[in-house]
Amino acid sequence: MFGSMFSTPEATERTGDAAWLQAMLDFESALAAAQAKAGIVPPEAAEDIAAHCRAELFDAASIGDRAVASATPVIALVKDLAAAVGPGSRPHVHRGATSQDVIDTAAMLLTRDVLELVVEDLLAAARECARLADQHRGTVLIARSLLQQALPTTFGLRCAGWLTSLDEAITGLRRVRPAVQFGGAAGTLASLGDGGTEVLGGVAERLGLAEPVLPWHTDRARIAELAGALGTACGVLGKIALDVELHAQTEVGELTEGRPGGSSAMPHKQNPATSVLITAATQRVPGLVATLLSAMPQSYERAAGAWQSEWEPLTELLRLSAAAARRTRELLEDLEVHPDRMAENLDLTRGLVLAENAAGRLMGALGRTDAQALVAELCRRTTGNGSTLRAELLAEPRVREVLSEDDVVAATSASDYLGSASEFIDRALAAHTGMEER
Amino acid sequence: MFGSMFSTPEATERTGDAAWLQAMLDFESALAAAQAKAGIVPPEAAEDIAAHCRAELFDAASIGDRAVASATPVIALVKDLAAAVGPGSRPHVHRGATSQDVIDTAAMLLTRDVLELVVEDLLAAARECARLADQHRGTVLIARSLLQQALPTTFGLRCAGWLTSLDEAITGLRRVRPAVQFGGAAGTLASLGDGGTEVLGGVAERLGLAEPVLPWHTDRARIAELAGALGTACGVLGKIALDVELHAQTEVGELTEGRPGGSSAMPHKQNPATSVLITAATQRVPGLVATLLSAMPQSYERAAGAWQSEWEPLTELLRLSAAAARRTRELLEDLEVHPDRMAENLDLTRGLVLAENAAGRLMGALGRTDAQALVAELCRRTTGNGSTLRAELLAEPRVREVLSEDDVVAATSASDYLGSASEFIDRALAAHTGMEER
Amino acid sequence: MFGSMFSTPEATERTGDAAWLQAMLDFESALAAAQAKAGIVPPEAAEDIAAHCRAELFDAASIGDRAVASATPVIALVKDLAAAVGPGSRPHVHRGATSQDVIDTAAMLLTRDVLELVVEDLLAAARECARLADQHRGTVLIARSLLQQALPTTFGLRCAGWLTSLDEAITGLRRVRPAVQFGGAAGTLASLGDGGTEVLGGVAERLGLAEPVLPWHTDRARIAELAGALGTACGVLGKIALDVELHAQTEVGELTEGRPGGSSAMPHKQNPATSVLITAATQRVPGLVATLLSAMPQSYERAAGAWQSEWEPLTELLRLSAAAARRTRELLEDLEVHPDRMAENLDLTRGLVLAENAAGRLMGALGRTDAQALVAELCRRTTGNGSTLRAELLAEPRVREVLSEDDVVAATSASDYLGSASEFIDRALAAHTGMEER
Amino acid sequence: MFGSMFSTPEATERTGDAAWLQAMLDFESALAAAQAKAGIVPPEAAEDIAAHCRAELFDAASIGDRAVASATPVIALVKDLAAAVGPGSRPHVHRGATSQDVIDTAAMLLTRDVLELVVEDLLAAARECARLADQHRGTVLIARSLLQQALPTTFGLRCAGWLTSLDEAITGLRRVRPAVQFGGAAGTLASLGDGGTEVLGGVAERLGLAEPVLPWHTDRARIAELAGALGTACGVLGKIALDVELHAQTEVGELTEGRPGGSSAMPHKQNPATSVLITAATQRVPGLVATLLSAMPQSYERAAGAWQSEWEPLTELLRLSAAAARRTRELLEDLEVHPDRMAENLDLTRGLVLAENAAGRLMGALGRTDAQALVAELCRRTTGNGSTLRAELLAEPRVREVLSEDDVVAATSASDYLGSASEFIDRALAAHTGMEER
Repeated sequence: MFGSMFSTPEATERTGDAAWLQAMLDFESALAAAQAKAGIVPPEAAEDIAAHCRAELFDAASIGDRAVASATPVIALVKDLAAAVGPGSRPHVHRGATSQDVIDTAAMLLTRDVLELVVEDLLAAARECARLADQHRGTVLIARSLLQQALPTTFGLRCAGWLTSLDEAITGLRRVRPAVQFGGAAGTLASLGDGGTEVLGGVAERLGLAEPVLPWHTDRARIAELAGALGTACGVLGKIALDVELHAQTEVGELTEGRPGGSSAMPHKQNPATSVLITAATQRVPGLVATLLSAMPQSYERAAGAWQSEWEPLTELLRLSAAAARRTRELLEDLEVHPDRMAENLDLTRGLVLAENAAGRLMGALGRTDAQALVAELCRRTTGNGSTLRAELLAEPRVREVLSEDDVVAATSASDYLGSASEFIDRALAAHTGMEER
Repeated sequence: MFGSMFSTPEATERTGDAAWLQAMLDFESALAAAQAKAGIVPPEAAEDIAAHCRAELFDAASIGDRAVASATPVIALVKDLAAAVGPGSRPHVHRGATSQDVIDTAAMLLTRDVLELVVEDLLAAARECARLADQHRGTVLIARSLLQQALPTTFGLRCAGWLTSLDEAITGLRRVRPAVQFGGAAGTLASLGDGGTEVLGGVAERLGLAEPVLPWHTDRARIAELAGALGTACGVLGKIALDVELHAQTEVGELTEGRPGGSSAMPHKQNPATSVLITAATQRVPGLVATLLSAMPQSYERAAGAWQSEWEPLTELLRLSAAAARRTRELLEDLEVHPDRMAENLDLTRGLVLAENAAGRLMGALGRTDAQALVAELCRRTTGNGSTLRAELLAEPRVREVLSEDDVVAATSASDYLGSASEFIDRALAAHTGMEER
Repeated sequence: MFGSMFSTPEATERTGDAAWLQAMLDFESALAAAQAKAGIVPPEAAEDIAAHCRAELFDAASIGDRAVASATPVIALVKDLAAAVGPGSRPHVHRGATSQDVIDTAAMLLTRDVLELVVEDLLAAARECARLADQHRGTVLIARSLLQQALPTTFGLRCAGWLTSLDEAITGLRRVRPAVQFGGAAGTLASLGDGGTEVLGGVAERLGLAEPVLPWHTDRARIAELAGALGTACGVLGKIALDVELHAQTEVGELTEGRPGGSSAMPHKQNPATSVLITAATQRVPGLVATLLSAMPQSYERAAGAWQSEWEPLTELLRLSAAAARRTRELLEDLEVHPDRMAENLDLTRGLVLAENAAGRLMGALGRTDAQALVAELCRRTTGNGSTLRAELLAEPRVREVLSEDDVVAATSASDYLGSASEFIDRALAAHTGMEER
Repeated sequence: MFGSMFSTPEATERTGDAAWLQAMLDFESALAAAQAKAGIVPPEAAEDIAAHCRAELFDAASIGDRAVASATPVIALVKDLAAAVGPGSRPHVHRGATSQDVIDTAAMLLTRDVLELVVEDLLAAARECARLADQHRGTVLIARSLLQQALPTTFGLRCAGWLTSLDEAITGLRRVRPAVQFGGAAGTLASLGDGGTEVLGGVAERLGLAEPVLPWHTDRARIAELAGALGTACGVLGKIALDVELHAQTEVGELTEGRPGGSSAMPHKQNPATSVLITAATQRVPGLVATLLSAMPQSYERAAGAWQSEWEPLTELLRLSAAAARRTRELLEDLEVHPDRMAENLDLTRGLVLAENAAGRLMGALGRTDAQALVAELCRRTTGNGSTLRAELLAEPRVREVLSEDDVVAATSASDYLGSASEFIDRALAAHTGMEER
């Protein structure tokens, strides 16, 4: 009912029961192959095992149900795999491995496969931000702090800020190091004699995962780093969605989603449905990250509960991240920008948001204190009689002694008070180009 | 793959897609019926709608997929329901209602149905604790603080503690007030004219839910209270599971699960698989509770994301709670208690855990300071020469001047140093009897 | 630097080092007195101890520093207290008690004292909501869902919603049951012989706390319930603050804080500083609640870390709750409501928000489908030519055949489309009256 | 009362009010200096400002109290600073800056200063692990999974696992990029004309912080990454402490803290007080990380509450991390290892933990199935008659046909069944050497 809103079809496919099952089987297959290479398992057995390591040959639901008795699905899976292969291969199934080897390695394979999606979507979203930043470097927008109008900025600079944050999120995700887990019951690979590390290396190579320094069964830093990187990325996405929701308010109207959601009851509504789903997905992420961090202290060589608590939250975190990344990409691709409404809103205070600038231009001649006092007086007048700050400045003799009409117009022109906005956009675009090249 | 470990069959059934769908349809059906009673909808239309409000007539997957466009599954559901009923009934489907009315009310129906399971299992678990508390009121156990042996207690008192905490959890859950949500788009029920509250009452009555003071769309206290009560209950269950895991350690051996989990690699292992699953489930709960609490600030009359973030975590919280309650019940029903190992462990320090008692018995004659100093000296001797505190007391002239052999034996007898343990058990049993009667 | 923003002077006083110290000493004093009553301690000793149980006689910083060595401040405190009393009283200090008895009971005393503040402020805030609800039952406001304008409501109904949620929060807090903790090292009160429960009752009575069924050292349901109740209350407050922040946006302008915050750089700004502090405080609460829930599984008779992790988060939770409650009360007392801006915003869509109502009035004559199609066409016309829905309705012959000018005016009049708003306000006010009387 | 247990003196000093104040003043001083360099501020004014930017000249409590009115301490601080400097310098105080510039940059300075402590302590802890890993590469220990004895490992390998996880934590913390924040009210640095980026660079250089691509006011990825890295580090530390607590159990006795905590009531107790404090500190971290991640979506150019919610949790996270790192270092420096108890515990199952090995040695001759069946039978015999697996193997003719006495002894000798343990230790030591050199 709710699943499609909180995942993407691709992420669902790469994290579903079949994906988990296949990843577990990929471990078993790679293990047998690596052991064959090391002379521990007969090559025919490894080939037989590999031939049977196909998810469609197994019943995930049955394996799941049987998992309850031992708190792990691996015993049932290994039993079914052993039953499927030929009798001669049977003793070579799962040799020297333990449950955690299978599940942790499978989790890393899923992680790698979903991160690929997430990073691709984040990169695409970043490109949209780069396009918008460049395109709107001259689109003046009122900056808002604490939800109050503050000073002018540009929509381009806002997009450059989004861009930089997406680049940071991508950098973080690129650092994640999915690695094979293989240590056997005690982390010593004792049953492989002195062939342990050779087999470890072989499994890693076959699966395309990093080879760890040593078995990381109860060292969950790898999972925590992944959680942290996804948490950071989702926070970045949540900020973009929040901005769009606020800009899209009926009373603000500066942005509209390209494909707004409808309402059965209210035909006039243009709901920011995509932003809402990004917000909904990303708000769930801090709780999941906390759960994974709380699970880090894992006792001795395998935890009694903490490890097992990771499985579903990790899967969910991957899905939510993929959903948020995909939807942000779509949101940005289709985003409708309304410079006219931005201009209208900029004028809502009738120039008061430029009081700082006006005072600055008077300081040279009047001194800071007098300049500020004068401008404050004119602001009150503006508010009182519904005029504009520009009109009040033009009408005030003390001002006109110092500033020409052109000066006053410039002082009250938002587009003349943008400081380094364009330069910051250039810096963000340049940094992004560096990202893309990596 | 993992779902069965973190739910029960009943809870999965009561929270699955079909359950959500049926609950949403139950709302639509009750709404039409209440509106028919109020003369707003023709009775035939209400009957027609009711006849079509059966989950098996709808395609949850399709509704879910279409939910993405508008960030709610209700638009698609209402469209399908309207298409299913006769043309004359069509205008009367979903009248005056909004998405949130349907989903929130459905969530309350699911909550009620799962809480019934949870409370039943908690009560059964409490009864097991009551049985164990009474049965083991004389089974002496070493109490441990900071994982160090402290003083004697009884296993019965420990079970009485579990019992009281379960009773508290049940009390909390019984206070949860599932209520109908019905307010229309703005919370005013405007499209029903002045018939709004009558219909609200009718819907509540038909669904067996409480009638709220007013629509609670953006007042999430009800959800937060539910989350808090389930969070408390799961914490209580997590403590019991942790105790069992610790008592079941190979080196402690005081408890064994009745149906321990096996290990494919290590035939001698007796894994506390049920406790592990309880721990794994309950460790995920605080993160979910935090997510639901974080979602409480919901803007205006319907939130842009916060509300939508509740749907899956709430479902998950219900499932995890049901799983933890069921497994704790099973754990306690089958728990194997080993008084012999409790007795052995009690002797591990060769009497040092009774030093407090010995000193107490000497104080009358020797004064507190001298008594303590003497006992401390005897403790050091005990440790040094591997004897027992009792032997050292018996061998020490300064003691024997004051205490007879019988006195010394009593002073170093754990079963004579149990204070109010039995009385506390009685109090817990009496309180529980009160609970049962409610 | 930040402390004053996240507490109140009263809450800081009731949770500071001196308050903790005094509460711990109150336990020691009550313990000695109850033991004197039970004939276990000489009355003079109890009086001597009581006379020295004054926080100002102790050095909290020194006790805190010495706490590091044993992971508890109680050993140092008891040592200092024993040193302060007369030699004859010394053996009677802290008799039969353990660290956890002192700290848990002290935590309950602080809880009680802060909850008193919180509930008082919540009640005062609720009264303000009741006043506003009644006063603004005719103040029409546009309801907003997903931050988009939806249908009319009243500001009074919004305040009634706040009121009901505050009443629910108060109900939750009133259920919290601060109880004494007293069990000795093992929870058996063994060193008191058969006098344990008498002393337990005596301590509870003296401190004005509830007497528990049995020692609750590792049953943290009581703490979890407190956390849940405060978490719920803070979520309720966070929603009110969020609404005020949104209503106070420059572009919305419907509410202003009575004492807005200034900005050094921008003299025109009216920052909703009080709402911002409420939001900032309440956003921190879910994480603290999760921490306290995560700490619930406490091993055996005293946890190795989980218990100790509660101390500061609990203190912080109390302060943040007190701050949020106090500031919400102040926010509501001073809130400036701008019905003119509410009216202006209601007209922003030029009547489109009443399309549902217009269609409803045409259905009798035209049938539902035709009525909706006609209104949808007029909505498009309204949008296209910048007129109002009312003007388009009046200009449309198909409408005028059915509706008089008065009918059209009524159909497009927000104040005529408020359904049960006023009735809901009455229900909320009546329910609140019930709360006050309890 | 509790502060010393959850910080270190150095961390308290570097995060206290005076530290915050000084860091804020350092920003103001660096800003004036950079502006002087850029010709925006007279050099004398910059010098005057610098001379007054000393925390001891300000009243943190007063600034904190005045912060409530505007939800920021910066307005009061700037006012006091302006009052302190000469009249000519006054207009140059805080030029072009906004509250968030001051607080965010100060937070980065504190972060840098505390991370230095944390990394130093983690490195020292890692060195202790390296020492222990090498020293105990031959100290056989029973590995435990789900708290049940599994197979032999070495204490050295355990320490190597701790070492690797510490190295990972250090790597994560070294990646944290404390950067200056400077953007003015809108993030454009408008009031500096075209001198904005020059001044930004100057401030960064003077403070020794990185220069960001653009102002990061509402891009909180930097804070989230810091939180994630500290969360990971604390989880790593929590695992070490948990292991020590479990190994130190009275019934296990394999490790003892060098400076165990005492108990006033129970003289025989050796509480693992340091581990308990590490556990208590680190258990609070996931909630704080979640709070910081939840605060990431910050609206527009400055958040209304989310930003402000970061201040205390960030401070607390720094303190808790510093405390946990310091105490882990101390724990490891003083850790007492008891190889005798490790050996005793290894024998608890009388050889059953080596059944896997024994079966392996028989497989060549008997085939896998028969070998396993035979060993399983001998295991049951061992359990039944209280003998050892070795004795049963020696007594069994079917075994003796295949294995010599020496073979049987080797097969049941834990030190002969350690697989790659020593090789993994070497790998961990080599990787650590690489860390140290970086």
